[in-house]
Amino acid sequence: MGYSDKHKLKTSNLQLPVRLLLGPGPSNLHPRVNQQLISSMVGYTDASYYKVMDETMELMRYLFQTDNHFTIPISGAGTAAMETCVSNLIEPGDKVVCLVSGFFSDRIYQMAVRYGGNILKVDKQWGQWFALEEIESALVQHKPSLLTLVFGETSTGVKQQMEGVGELCKKYNCLLMVDCVAALGGVPVFVDDWKIDACYTGTQKCLSGPPGISPLTFSNAACHKIATRKTPVANWYLDCNLLGGYWCPEFNLADGTIAKEEKSTIPKRYHHTTPANLLYSLREALVLLVEEGLDNVWKRHQDAAILLYAGLESLGLKPFVPQLNEAPEKGGRLFSLTTVNIPDGVDGKMVMKYLLDNFNIEIAGGIGAFAGKVWRIGLMGQNANPGNIKLLISSLSDALKVNGFNC
Amino acid sequence: MGYSDKHKLKTSNLQLPVRLLLGPGPSNLHPRVNQQLISSMVGYTDASYYKVMDETMELMRYLFQTDNHFTIPISGAGTAAMETCVSNLIEPGDKVVCLVSGFFSDRIYQMAVRYGGNILKVDKQWGQWFALEEIESALVQHKPSLLTLVFGETSTGVKQQMEGVGELCKKYNCLLMVDCVAALGGVPVFVDDWKIDACYTGTQKCLSGPPGISPLTFSNAACHKIATRKTPVANWYLDCNLLGGYWCPEFNLADGTIAKEEKSTIPKRYHHTTPANLLYSLREALVLLVEEGLDNVWKRHQDAAILLYAGLESLGLKPFVPQLNEAPEKGGRLFSLTTVNIPDGVDGKMVMKYLLDNFNIEIAGGIGAFAGKVWRIGLMGQNANPGNIKLLISSLSDALKVNGFNC
Repeated sequence: MGYSDKHKLKTSNLQLPVRLLLGPGPSNLHPRVNQQLISSMVGYTDASYYKVMDETMELMRYLFQTDNHFTIPISGAGTAAMETCVSNLIEPGDKVVCLVSGFFSDRIYQMAVRYGGNILKVDKQWGQWFALEEIESALVQHKPSLLTLVFGETSTGVKQQMEGVGELCKKYNCLLMVDCVAALGGVPVFVDDWKIDACYTGTQKCLSGPPGISPLTFSNAACHKIATRKTPVANWYLDCNLLGGYWCPEFNLADGTIAKEEKSTIPKRYHHTTPANLLYSLREALVLLVEEGLDNVWKRHQDAAILLYAGLESLGLKPFVPQLNEAPEKGGRLFSLTTVNIPDGVDGKMVMKYLLDNFNIEIAGGIGAFAGKVWRIGLMGQNANPGNIKLLISSLSDALKVNGFNC
Repeated sequence: MGYSDKHKLKTSNLQLPVRLLLGPGPSNLHPRVNQQLISSMVGYTDASYYKVMDETMELMRYLFQTDNHFTIPISGAGTAAMETCVSNLIEPGDKVVCLVSGFFSDRIYQMAVRYGGNILKVDKQWGQWFALEEIESALVQHKPSLLTLVFGETSTGVKQQMEGVGELCKKYNCLLMVDCVAALGGVPVFVDDWKIDACYTGTQKCLSGPPGISPLTFSNAACHKIATRKTPVANWYLDCNLLGGYWCPEFNLADGTIAKEEKSTIPKRYHHTTPANLLYSLREALVLLVEEGLDNVWKRHQDAAILLYAGLESLGLKPFVPQLNEAPEKGGRLFSLTTVNIPDGVDGKMVMKYLLDNFNIEIAGGIGAFAGKVWRIGLMGQNANPGNIKLLISSLSDALKVNGFNC
């Protein structure tokens, strides 16, 4: 009984290699974003902290291109933001349509069934996107109150076409939930123009930030649904009725009104201790977006992708997604994350290992239905620059030759 | 339509005051813990990252004083760790007893009812702890499969007596869930000796770490319950069947066995991107515990508390909890967090404001049933040292005099 030394592990200093992270995320942190992690800790009721919260909310509206008042960071991974949408927007018995053609769209479905909804899974071969007619057909058939899709599918490198999707959902009185984890802050997303009701992302992809805090936005229609549920949200930590009380108590979720009182006079109601260091860091990532301008950031990601495609071609490699389709609302290649076919006879894992062992470059393999079939190359956030592509293509050339591919 | 500058907020550099955080948490980060936040980012399948994960799990076993193999950090606030216990251990229809005598024990109850259990709330006046007979009476009456309690109640400064509680739960075939958020790493907690089945804490209290990642441990009996549930865990992000596949795939939750294969040959199954920066930081906080020795850490917190009590007495102030009761398993004052009665006629908020404005010292007021009645003073982690107490008592003396209290 009493104190024991049994698990008193002797350790040496933390030993971490310095990697160039060109996989599907995390990507490398921007130095300024990294630096903010160690800004001084203050209490969760400190006026200075409230200012950081409010500024970050406004900056996220810029990121999402939305006027949504309910735009907050979730204290968890992108998956937690996904579950915030699912758990808040689905009540037992609610009809939901999940469009599934990749690992993460399937994850939304896996989650949704846990919340007691009547869920229709519309499957499509991995690597394809859904046409408007297919979406309309599902809406007509199932009459859902929620449609879920992934805009930028990290597992396949596919961008879902968005033209007309929001309008269709409005026509059929259905909320639209869109996963933008691999896209937001790198590829154009227009939450308001596209009539998206629920949207979220992670910080460790195109924002070059630390994982563990995840921007999310809800339209007033989504907020109304949440505030007028017949049953409590099954998940306490992610309940947006409670989270709103801390992040934006001035906002009435039920009717979308904002209290007329001076904001500083409306008390924020404590919910949980938010990850302050990560919030400082997220704020700085968003400040960087403002400085560069989102439109410029999008162009930089697109330019980087085009350079990558040319480099891959020079090696005799082909992106998995044939269609380029530059227009933001069209389906096609996701500029921030490229899936590349592994040529016949090449051991994809050995190539990745060679890059990691010799050049400290991380790219990733396929997952799920794409395991062993593709590499996944991410050019996200600060990593989307021409130098990294030179380095990658040159290193990849070595790795391929060593592994018997004639390039 | 298209890109908009509307929410392109102009900001200045992040402005944060340097506070001495002597409230109920967050507390100040230890400089070494802070520094690890900016260690280099690696991918979630990097061998170097797996090493950090494994070391942190072993170090947490030391923290919890347990042999439990299933000892992992949850990617969220302490509240997320709380919900991990509740959502994994409660199935619809399960009988649960929640012992409630403070803000956070009530939070457990509020969560538990969302998971469809048959929940008996045993209420007791805030600021009291439960006697063994009361607990036995609830177990006999309700025959629960889970009993929940808070060991160190942040809202009242009370330490629940633990002597015999675990034995009682075993006798009545009931799992025991214990919240140690305000206590672990500051006050003795013996998960195995006390026969606790589910235990968790936050990092931003006695560990002097950043909020957003939360140590949790489950006994083999708890794991068996989780692995043999009739229904899926209602919460995907916190489902320990899935989390185990990433953190400890070598462990069989159903039967408590550990695979015989070399650990490095058993693939970790990706679940979500864990908050790497926070994990580095948590690891360092635990390395500091090892260096100082948990037994010494406990003594330092106790010595600090005794010094604080003497200082308060010199000012004519009284801790809310009358009984000191030093023995770890006895109910009494929580050394890491002291509630202090606000004297009649003194405006508690003005005193706090004076401390903050003049000395950058944060202490907190009461919440819930204790709002306006007490101050809450935390001496947690690195902040539990004699110098801070000298500073606090001297500053508090000024603050009290300015606010009309004769001390």
